[in-house]
Amino acid sequence: MSTKYVYRFEEGNAGMKNLLGGKGANLAEMTNIGLPVPPGFIVTTEACKEFYLQGRRLPDGLMDEIREHIRLLEQKLGKVLGDEQNPLLVSVRSGAPVSMPGMMDTVLNLGLNDRTVEGLARSTGDERFALDCYRRFINMFGDVVMHVEHYQFESILQAQKDRRGVQHDHQLTAADWREVIARYKSLIETEIRRPFPQDPLEQLTMAVRAVFDSWYNDRAVVYRKIHRIPDDLGTAVNIQAMVFGNMGEDSGSGVAFTRNPSTGEREVYGEYLTNAQGEDVVGGIRTPKPIQELAADLPEVYRQFRDICELLDRHYRDMQDIEFTIERGRLYILQTRNGKRTAQAAIRIAVDMVDEGLISREEAVVRVEPEQLDHLLHRHIDPEAKLDVIATGLPASPGSAAGKAVFDADTAEKLAQEGEKVILVRNETTPDDIHGIVAAQGILTSRGGMTSHAAVVARGMGKPCVCGCEAIRIKGREPVFTVNDVTVRQGDLISIDGSTGRVILGAAPMLDPELSPEFQRLLEWADEIRTLEVRGNADTPADAAKAREFGAAGIGLCRTEHMFMGADRLPIVQQMILADDEDTRRAALEKLLPMQREDFYGILKAMDGLPVCIRLLDPPLHEFLPDIEELHVDITRLQFTAGDTPELREKEELLRKIRALSECNPMLGHRGCRLGITYPEVYAMQARAVFLATVDLLREGHHPVPEVEIPLVIDRNEFVFLKQQVDQAAAEVRAETGVEFEYTVGTMIELPRAALLADEIAREAEFFSFGTNDLTQTTLGFSRDDAEGKFLHRYLELKLLPDNPFAVLDRKGVGRLIAMGIELGRSTRPDLLVGICGEHGGEPRSIEFCHQVGMNYVSCSPYRVPIARLAAAQARVTNDGLVAKDYGTK
Amino acid sequence: MSTKYVYRFEEGNAGMKNLLGGKGANLAEMTNIGLPVPPGFIVTTEACKEFYLQGRRLPDGLMDEIREHIRLLEQKLGKVLGDEQNPLLVSVRSGAPVSMPGMMDTVLNLGLNDRTVEGLARSTGDERFALDCYRRFINMFGDVVMHVEHYQFESILQAQKDRRGVQHDHQLTAADWREVIARYKSLIETEIRRPFPQDPLEQLTMAVRAVFDSWYNDRAVVYRKIHRIPDDLGTAVNIQAMVFGNMGEDSGSGVAFTRNPSTGEREVYGEYLTNAQGEDVVGGIRTPKPIQELAADLPEVYRQFRDICELLDRHYRDMQDIEFTIERGRLYILQTRNGKRTAQAAIRIAVDMVDEGLISREEAVVRVEPEQLDHLLHRHIDPEAKLDVIATGLPASPGSAAGKAVFDADTAEKLAQEGEKVILVRNETTPDDIHGIVAAQGILTSRGGMTSHAAVVARGMGKPCVCGCEAIRIKGREPVFTVNDVTVRQGDLISIDGSTGRVILGAAPMLDPELSPEFQRLLEWADEIRTLEVRGNADTPADAAKAREFGAAGIGLCRTEHMFMGADRLPIVQQMILADDEDTRRAALEKLLPMQREDFYGILKAMDGLPVCIRLLDPPLHEFLPDIEELHVDITRLQFTAGDTPELREKEELLRKIRALSECNPMLGHRGCRLGITYPEVYAMQARAVFLATVDLLREGHHPVPEVEIPLVIDRNEFVFLKQQVDQAAAEVRAETGVEFEYTVGTMIELPRAALLADEIAREAEFFSFGTNDLTQTTLGFSRDDAEGKFLHRYLELKLLPDNPFAVLDRKGVGRLIAMGIELGRSTRPDLLVGICGEHGGEPRSIEFCHQVGMNYVSCSPYRVPIARLAAAQARVTNDGLVAKDYGTK
Repeated sequence: MSTKYVYRFEEGNAGMKNLLGGKGANLAEMTNIGLPVPPGFIVTTEACKEFYLQGRRLPDGLMDEIREHIRLLEQKLGKVLGDEQNPLLVSVRSGAPVSMPGMMDTVLNLGLNDRTVEGLARSTGDERFALDCYRRFINMFGDVVMHVEHYQFESILQAQKDRRGVQHDHQLTAADWREVIARYKSLIETEIRRPFPQDPLEQLTMAVRAVFDSWYNDRAVVYRKIHRIPDDLGTAVNIQAMVFGNMGEDSGSGVAFTRNPSTGEREVYGEYLTNAQGEDVVGGIRTPKPIQELAADLPEVYRQFRDICELLDRHYRDMQDIEFTIERGRLYILQTRNGKRTAQAAIRIAVDMVDEGLISREEAVVRVEPEQLDHLLHRHIDPEAKLDVIATGLPASPGSAAGKAVFDADTAEKLAQEGEKVILVRNETTPDDIHGIVAAQGILTSRGGMTSHAAVVARGMGKPCVCGCEAIRIKGREPVFTVNDVTVRQGDLISIDGSTGRVILGAAPMLDPELSPEFQRLLEWADEIRTLEVRGNADTPADAAKAREFGAAGIGLCRTEHMFMGADRLPIVQQMILADDEDTRRAALEKLLPMQREDFYGILKAMDGLPVCIRLLDPPLHEFLPDIEELHVDITRLQFTAGDTPELREKEELLRKIRALSECNPMLGHRGCRLGITYPEVYAMQARAVFLATVDLLREGHHPVPEVEIPLVIDRNEFVFLKQQVDQAAAEVRAETGVEFEYTVGTMIELPRAALLADEIAREAEFFSFGTNDLTQTTLGFSRDDAEGKFLHRYLELKLLPDNPFAVLDRKGVGRLIAMGIELGRSTRPDLLVGICGEHGGEPRSIEFCHQVGMNYVSCSPYRVPIARLAAAQARVTNDGLVAKDYGTK
Repeated sequence: MSTKYVYRFEEGNAGMKNLLGGKGANLAEMTNIGLPVPPGFIVTTEACKEFYLQGRRLPDGLMDEIREHIRLLEQKLGKVLGDEQNPLLVSVRSGAPVSMPGMMDTVLNLGLNDRTVEGLARSTGDERFALDCYRRFINMFGDVVMHVEHYQFESILQAQKDRRGVQHDHQLTAADWREVIARYKSLIETEIRRPFPQDPLEQLTMAVRAVFDSWYNDRAVVYRKIHRIPDDLGTAVNIQAMVFGNMGEDSGSGVAFTRNPSTGEREVYGEYLTNAQGEDVVGGIRTPKPIQELAADLPEVYRQFRDICELLDRHYRDMQDIEFTIERGRLYILQTRNGKRTAQAAIRIAVDMVDEGLISREEAVVRVEPEQLDHLLHRHIDPEAKLDVIATGLPASPGSAAGKAVFDADTAEKLAQEGEKVILVRNETTPDDIHGIVAAQGILTSRGGMTSHAAVVARGMGKPCVCGCEAIRIKGREPVFTVNDVTVRQGDLISIDGSTGRVILGAAPMLDPELSPEFQRLLEWADEIRTLEVRGNADTPADAAKAREFGAAGIGLCRTEHMFMGADRLPIVQQMILADDEDTRRAALEKLLPMQREDFYGILKAMDGLPVCIRLLDPPLHEFLPDIEELHVDITRLQFTAGDTPELREKEELLRKIRALSECNPMLGHRGCRLGITYPEVYAMQARAVFLATVDLLREGHHPVPEVEIPLVIDRNEFVFLKQQVDQAAAEVRAETGVEFEYTVGTMIELPRAALLADEIAREAEFFSFGTNDLTQTTLGFSRDDAEGKFLHRYLELKLLPDNPFAVLDRKGVGRLIAMGIELGRSTRPDLLVGICGEHGGEPRSIEFCHQVGMNYVSCSPYRVPIARLAAAQARVTNDGLVAKDYGTK
C-alpha cells in the first residue's frame, strides 16, 4: 500500500506540525474546532522528502491523491476546477514545520485560464475584478513557477499605464487588463518557449513542484543556515479554496484582535471593509470601519464573528490576531495567530488571563517580553503627540527628555544649578564631562556607538541618551549644531527619545512611567517563581534608593571611581595620583577619607539591611587626569605665545608626569587591584571609609551589610595580600571605635585567569562577582571602545558572531569561563556567593544563562531591575520545565 | 627501646638525606668511599621533629647518645673534649634534607674554654692562633646560641683596634686577643645575665638546641615559604672534629675542581695556601698557589689528593668542587659538591663523560643549562679585556657589539650604508626606528624594560640590546648623551654587552661565537632524544638561513608586518591604510604585491623543503602611521609660524584620519584577522603573493612548503570566512599559472576564546600555533607594554607571581588554556599540528611545558634554536624518566 501523502484539514490538528507544516496544522486545528475555514487539504512534508529522495521527482501516486482531494473540494463547494461557469479557484502555499516567513513560494487564484476567467467574471458580476485576478495569477505563476523575472511583468504593466496616461493600477480598465494579459502570456512564451498552461491540473502539478523546489532556493537555504533549521524537514503544501470578499455589499474582509492590542482591554478590536479583499483593508485606499459597525451592516455575521473571537482566544489561551473574509454573507476565517501587542497590553492580557483561569502564573510570566518593559520604566514621549523629528541616532539609553541644548559640561552644570533643564550635546563624551552628564536631563552625541562612553554612563544613571547621531553637525567650538537646514543654538529647546533614537525640535509632551497594578502583580508572581536574586548597580544613595524601589535585593556593584569624579574631589584625586612621595599621597588621601565615608554612609543607609557590594578603586589612573594630547598642544601654544613662564614649566612638569602614567592599553594596564598592590594606602583608605561608615550606621541603629570587593584579581596570592589590608583596616576601626561589625571580602572575576584559577581564589574569597564587560573584552580580545566603531558591525553583518557580545553574553566563550569559574569556585567553597554585574546582568538572554549556571544573583542598572526580575522568573519557568514550551500558535 | 637519634658518618650514605640532611648524608657518603673526612656524627632530623613535638624540648636520651658518640670520636682521634692538654674541638652545623644555604646556624671550634684554649696554644705552638679561635668561638656562640647581637662584639673589636692604632685584625697581638676575650665574656654576662659556659658538654647541648631552634627562625621560615619547602622536614645536626690547616708548613688549605671549570679540560684545577685555614684561601690576603705546586711542597699529599679527585669525579659522575685541609701532613676532605662551570666547560665535561663511559647521552643532555648557552651563540666581549664600563642597563638581547654612537634611525641607516658600524642610542624605540635598528650593530635605550619595543625587536633579530639604561641622559634633540661626567657624541665609539647590560666606552675586543665540536655533538644527541621539533621565527631570508644553520626544522612564525616597515614600503602601506575608497587601497596593494612575492620567495627558498608558517598581517594599523601627539604639535607649531598653508591643511587631514584609526586599547582593537574581515583585499593580496612565490619556486625545481596562518581568530565562522579567501587566491593562482601546489591553512590561538572553542575551530584549521605573548596578555589582563614598567616588578618583589609571565609561561593560567586548546582541538582533528611561537618558545621551562602537553614543535628566534633543541631533549629526559632525577651531589 502506498503512503498517504495528502490530508484533508479535517484529518489534522495543531500537534501535527512536523507532518503538515505549521500553517497546515493550524488550518486543520481551526477546521476541527468548528471554525468556518475555506476547505482544503495538505500535501505532507513526507511527500517533499520523497520528492528530493527521488531526485526532484513527484512521488508516484501523489498527483492521483491530489486529484482525488480536489474532487472532494469540488463536491463540498459545488464548484469545479476548470469549469467555465463556476470555476473552483485555489491557493497553493508552502508551509514548513518551522516558520520561515517569505522564504518559500505561494500561488493564488490557481485554476484561472482564458475560459474560467470569464466564468469568474460572470459569477462575480465584475469583469474587471476577474481579469485583474487572472493577470495577477499569470504574473505570480510566471514568476514563481516558470521563473520569468518579475520586473518584466512590471514593465509591461508600466507601459500600459504610460499608454493610458494613468498613474495607478486601479485606473486601468477591463480592456486594459485584457491587453496586459495578452502581453503577459506572450512574454512567457518568448522567455520559456512554452505557452502559459491553460489546464488547471497542469497548473496545480507545476505549482506543487515549484513549492517543493523552493525548499532549496537560495534564500531558504541561507535562512535555515542562519537559524540552524535542519535541511531535512521539508515543506508541506497547502491547497485551499479561494474565497472573495469583493462579491458585493454582503461581502467584505477584515482583521481583528480578540483583545485590545494597545491597552489589553478585553474587547474585540479591529476593522473591516465591505466589498473588499484583504489587501484593500491594509492597502489604505479606502478607510476601513471599526469592527463594531459590522453589527449594523451584517448583524448575524458580527454575532458569529464575536463568538469565534471568544472561542479562539480561549482555545489558544492568548490574544489572537485574526484575518477573515465574508463572501456573500458567509464568514470565513483565513488565519489566526498570537497578536502583537504593546507592553501595557502584554501585561494586562497576561494578568487578566490568569484571573480568567486560562493560564497559570508561570505562563503569564513568560508571556511578556522583558525588553518590552524598558520604556514603561522611563518617561516617554506621548505617542499621540505631533513631533518635529529632525534626526535619528542610536537608541542608546531609554527614556525621553526635553531641555535647552548646551554644548559643554560646565555650562550644563551652571544652567542646571540655575534650575534649567538641559540636554548635553557633544560630539562624544569623556570622563571630563561627567558633571555635565549628571546635570543634564539627557545626552545627545554625534559620534560613538551603543557602548560609547556617553551610552554606558547614561544607561548606568538611567538617563536618556541618543548616540552616534551623525546627521547633526557641531560647528567646531561654537555652541551650535545643524541638521540639514535646521540650526539649533545653545538654549534652544530640543527633546530626545532614547528608546527610538529620535531627536525632536522643541519640548515634546511627556508621559510619566506607568507602573500599573497589573505590572506590580506580574512582578510579584515573577518574584515567587524565580530562584535568581536581582540586585542593582548604584554609585549614589539616590540610585540605590531607586534600585530598592524597583525591587532590588541589594547592590551588586557600587563603583567608587564615579565618586572620585565630582568637581570638589577631582583636584584632590589628581593630587594623590601625581604625588611624588607617599607623604603627599597620604595627605591627599586624608582629605578624601571623610568624603568616601559619607558616600558609603549614604549608600549603606539607603540599602539598610541589604548587602552592598563596594568595589575598591578600579579604573586606570589616567582617567582622572587631563588629556595628554590637549596638554601637549597647550604647551606648544604657550611656547609660541608666552615663552618660558612658570605656567609653561608647570604644564611641562604635568605633561611629564601624565606621560609617565600613560599607557598603551589602559584596559590591560595599571588598574584594578594593581593599584592596591602598588599604592596600598589607597585601598586602605577606602576600606577604612567603608568600616567607619558601617560603625556610624550601627551606632544609629541601622543594619549595614558591606561586602568589600577587590577588582581585577588574577591570583590567590594577590587576593590574600589585599584582603590582609582590608582586614587590618577593619581591625583598626574596631579597635578605635570599640564597635563590632560584620563584613565579607570577595572579588570580581573579570579576567580569564581568575576564572581558570577560581578554585584557588575561592579558598580566600567569600564571593565572586563576574565582571562580564571586562571578561568579554579579554576573552574575545575585543576592546569595547574600539570594537564597535571599527569592526564589530562587520562581524554582525557577516553573522560571524550571533550578537554583540557586549550586549548579549557570549555563552560559548565567556559563558564557558563563567561556568568553569563557578564550578571550580564552589569546589573549594561550596557556599560561595556568585553574582554578575556589568550590563549583561540586565539583559534577558544573559540572565537566563546566569540562572542555568547557578548564580545567586544578577545585578543591573536600577531601571532594569524589574526587567531582570521578570527575566529571572522566565529563565526558571522555561529551564525548569514549569510550563510546556509550545503554547499557542506562535 | 628508644629511637636511634645519632648516626656515625660510617653508618650513613648519600641516599639518606631525609634522615641525615643533605650535608650529613654527603659527609657519610665520602667517609664510606674511603675519603679522609674529619670524623663525626649526625643527629637526625627525627630528633629535630621530636624536639618540636615536645614543645622545644630535647628528646629523652638524645644527649646521652651524643655523649656516647663524642667518646667514640675521642677514641678515634686521641683527643678529649675539654681536655686541657689535647682538647677535642668540633663544629656543629645544621643540615636540612633540602639545601637552605645560610638560613640556619653553625658553630665552629666548640670545646674551647679558658683552659682548653691554652692546650690548643701549646699543641699548635701558636698562642695567638688559639686565642683568635677562642674569641671567634665566643663571638659565634654568643651570637648564634646566646642571642647577643653581633654588632656588639664588633664594636669591642673595633675599640681594641682603635686603642692599638691598627686597621686590620691580623695586626692585633695575642695580648690584644686576651683583652678582647675578657671583654666578650663580660659583654655576654651583662646582656644575658649568665656567664659564657665553660663546660664543653654544656656548650654542645646549647648548640644542638640552637640549631634545632634555627629551623624556625624568621629567615628560614620565609625561605621555606618562598621555595615551597614543607615545614615538617626538620634539620639534622652535624658534629664533626675540627681540623686546622695552619699548624705549620706541613699544613694548608685549598679548593680545587676535578676538571677545569672554564674550559672543561680534564685536569685538576685549583689553588691552595700552606699554613693557612680555608678562609685565608678565599680571603685574598695572601696569594694562593696553583694546586700543582703542592706536588713539590708535599708530594705524597698531592698524589693522594689527585687520586681523591679522580675518585670523586667518577663516584659522583660530575665535576666536583672540593674543599680540603692538610693538618700536619694529613689530608682531610671537608666538602665536595658539583662545581659551577662556564657554558663551554659544561658542554665539554658532559661530552667527555659520555666518552669516558661515566654517563649516558641522556644524562649529558641534562647536564648543561640551556640558558648558559645563550652567550656562546653570540659575539661576546673578550672576558680578559680591560674595559671602561660607564653604565649598566638591562641585558635585553644577548651578544655584544661595538660601533659609532648615533641618535636617530636615519643617520644609523646612512652611516651603515657608508660601511660604518653603528650603535643606535635612543630614549626608546618605536616602529618608526625599524630601519635604524636593522642598520645598527646594537641598540642602547635609556628607557623601557626587557619587553620594550627595542628589546623585543632586537631579540627577534638576534641583535645585542641594552635597555632601560637610566644612567645615560640624552640631551633633547642633540646627538649627545652623558653619563656622570662622561659625554658621548655622535660618532664616538662605544660598545654594549647585551648579555650583562654593560655600556663601554670605546671598541671592546670581541670574540666570535664558538660552536665547538663538543657543542655540535651534544646537540646531535639532543636531537636524537627529543620528540618536540624546533622551528625558528624569521621575517627575512637571512634570518631563515640563520635558523636553518642552527638546526631549525622550519619557520614557525614569519611575520609579514616587519616587511611592511621598510623605508621603500612604508609610504605605500600608509597609502593603503589611509585610502578613502577601495580603489585607492587596491592600487596601493597592487604595488605591494610584487614586493611581498619577493619576500616570500626568499624565505621559502631559504627553507626549501621545510615548512614556513606565514602569518597574515597582524598589528593594529596605527603602528604604520606617524605618532599622533607629534603630529598635533607640528600642526600647532605650523599654525603659529606659517598660518593657513597647504602643508598645514594636509597635516590636519592626516591628523583627522589617524585619529579615526587611533584606538584606546590597540592590543584588543582593529588588528589580526579583523583587518582581513574589514579589508579582505589585504589578505587576498598576501595570500596571492605567497602562492605566486610558491609557483615561482616550484618552476625552479624547489620544494616550498607554505603554511598560511590567520591570526587572532576567536570563532570558527571567522576562520571559515577568511580561509575561503585564501583558498580562492590559491585557485586563482593555480588557474593563471597552471601549476599545482600544496599548502595548509591554520590559525594562531592567542585569545582565550580561541582556546575555549578549539574543537570548533580545529574542524576547519589544519594547524594551531599558540601565540603565547598575546594569550598571556589577555588571560592575565596584562598589557606587556604597560605591566613591566608600572606594576609587574611589584608582583615579582612580593612574590605574588613566581615569574615574569612574559618570560616564563604561566602554566597555571595560560598553560591551562593551552592544554584545553590542544585537547579540544585534537578531539575534532586528531592529527592537528600544534606549535608555539612567541618568546616562550625559546625559554627552557616553557619548552618543558610544551613537551608535557604534547605540542609538535616550539618556534623561537634563530639564535635560540640550539637552546630550544637542548631544552626539548631535557624535557623528554626528565618527563619521560629517561634518567633518575637525582644525579650527583646537587
